[in-house]
Amino acid sequence: MQDEFTLTEKLRKRAKIPAGSAVVKGIGDDCAIYRPRGSADDLLFTTDMLLENVHFRRETHKAAEAGRKALARGLSDIAAMGGSPRFCLLSLCVAESMDDKWVNGFFDGVTSLADETGTVLAGGDLARSPAMSCDVVVCGAVPRGEALLRSGARPGHEIWVSGELGGSALGLETNKGKARRRHIAPEPRIQLGQYIREKLRATAAMDISDGLSLDLQRMCAASATGAEITAPPRFTGASLEQSLHGGEEYELLFTVRPGTRVPPTFEGLRLTRIGRMTDPAAGNPVRLDGVPLEPKGWDHFARQATA
Amino acid sequence: MQDEFTLTEKLRKRAKIPAGSAVVKGIGDDCAIYRPRGSADDLLFTTDMLLENVHFRRETHKAAEAGRKALARGLSDIAAMGGSPRFCLLSLCVAESMDDKWVNGFFDGVTSLADETGTVLAGGDLARSPAMSCDVVVCGAVPRGEALLRSGARPGHEIWVSGELGGSALGLETNKGKARRRHIAPEPRIQLGQYIREKLRATAAMDISDGLSLDLQRMCAASATGAEITAPPRFTGASLEQSLHGGEEYELLFTVRPGTRVPPTFEGLRLTRIGRMTDPAAGNPVRLDGVPLEPKGWDHFARQATA
Repeated sequence: MQDEFTLTEKLRKRAKIPAGSAVVKGIGDDCAIYRPRGSADDLLFTTDMLLENVHFRRETHKAAEAGRKALARGLSDIAAMGGSPRFCLLSLCVAESMDDKWVNGFFDGVTSLADETGTVLAGGDLARSPAMSCDVVVCGAVPRGEALLRSGARPGHEIWVSGELGGSALGLETNKGKARRRHIAPEPRIQLGQYIREKLRATAAMDISDGLSLDLQRMCAASATGAEITAPPRFTGASLEQSLHGGEEYELLFTVRPGTRVPPTFEGLRLTRIGRMTDPAAGNPVRLDGVPLEPKGWDHFARQATA
Repeated sequence: MQDEFTLTEKLRKRAKIPAGSAVVKGIGDDCAIYRPRGSADDLLFTTDMLLENVHFRRETHKAAEAGRKALARGLSDIAAMGGSPRFCLLSLCVAESMDDKWVNGFFDGVTSLADETGTVLAGGDLARSPAMSCDVVVCGAVPRGEALLRSGARPGHEIWVSGELGGSALGLETNKGKARRRHIAPEPRIQLGQYIREKLRATAAMDISDGLSLDLQRMCAASATGAEITAPPRFTGASLEQSLHGGEEYELLFTVRPGTRVPPTFEGLRLTRIGRMTDPAAGNPVRLDGVPLEPKGWDHFARQATA
């Protein structure tokens, strides 16, 4: 079976964007970008599925936690482009084994995070079948031409991350304490995304959804750079492996021009310089303390469910 | 278990749209409407799931036919509002029992209809799990303030339908001939939607996705009217029941002011006046030849899969 990357590349090539289209960015970044005729804003679109036994389990996630996570994933993509969420669309297929209480709890989770972040639930679709599935589309807005892309980094730019990494992987493993909370209820970094776009003039950004090693490799590929990093700050109790490869962090990975004054924290959230972009090298573009770092991040398409 | 209508109403109430939001139409019509700052266009958004054994079966639908249908459902909603499709987002969870050939065929179906209709495939999400599911979001554009709503009909307005009804239900039953084709490969009425908006100044419109009896009742509820109709034109071989209650027609149901000159055909597609809107009456708002017409259309949430 072809992997996610192969399939995505195939689709990207087939989905040629015609000249003059208002779609100014298609497949291949955190969000697609649409430029409405005459508008001062670009619109960002991202779509994320939440599947039982792939992205959550009923035994470990309460219904409201699953609902919250379904929306958080898309909000994090909007954050990664420096956008403000505007609205979302929710498609939910309810499993036959789920009752009204579960469905109501799920919607509570979606709508409470939507309210917190000013995201209007504008529409959706409902169905029932043996297996639960859910898909959430989030639309965000950003001033025209200002969206942060993965492709804007250049050799010499500094590489930064927010927060401490590995907590989500640790929480998945132990299902306990703050790490559990981190895995179950990730916080999309919406304000931070706007801050690095407006104030730091970040050159590239993405959210860490599939692990630092894999996501940084993707940023290097998009920007045609290599990267030299040191170990990122670790969530308390997380291993080095978890901090390097653990997915579902939803922290921001971004680059700035050398000499940019980045504060050590933003609204209480730690910001850490972990390295710099380099000229592209043959083979693996990411090096940790001078040694090639193999990506072991999460490929939802190729790998078995563990979450 | 609460039915789709109850759940949708609950969500609609919870998803209050704040004053000043750019979301000018939320849950409750064929599409949500977003008004980008400063743009001459309103943007239409619709989301539709396509689930194996609910909306299609592998034994009766080739992969490309399923892919085509996944996109056609949303395009039909854009058509119903008089819009032009701009782009789509595709989330696909591939069943473990599906091979590369199936997946490639499915994408062929999506992209060929996307190409035919000028719809850019702008993004998506991929996953694997035991059960296949798919969700397609379509974005369309319409001149600001001009989208056709379900709610614009008034007593005295004429009720029209495109095409002949009952073919999809017949095709589902017999799996043969032109009726099968009609069930498997519905045609979104995009040009017709734009024509009735621009040239006929239609007052209300929607697509017939869940059966004439149920969809007309929804239009009456949105417009606060009743409706008096006669039997609609029937697809060759379809029963009266199939023409009244059969779903997945994807023909347009629309209303015009009395005296509007509606041609008998549009690009070879028959247009038929089937009745007129009346004052709202207590109870069932729709009457067929003077007798209340019980809606027996398709409620995907309440009913078992048959397609």
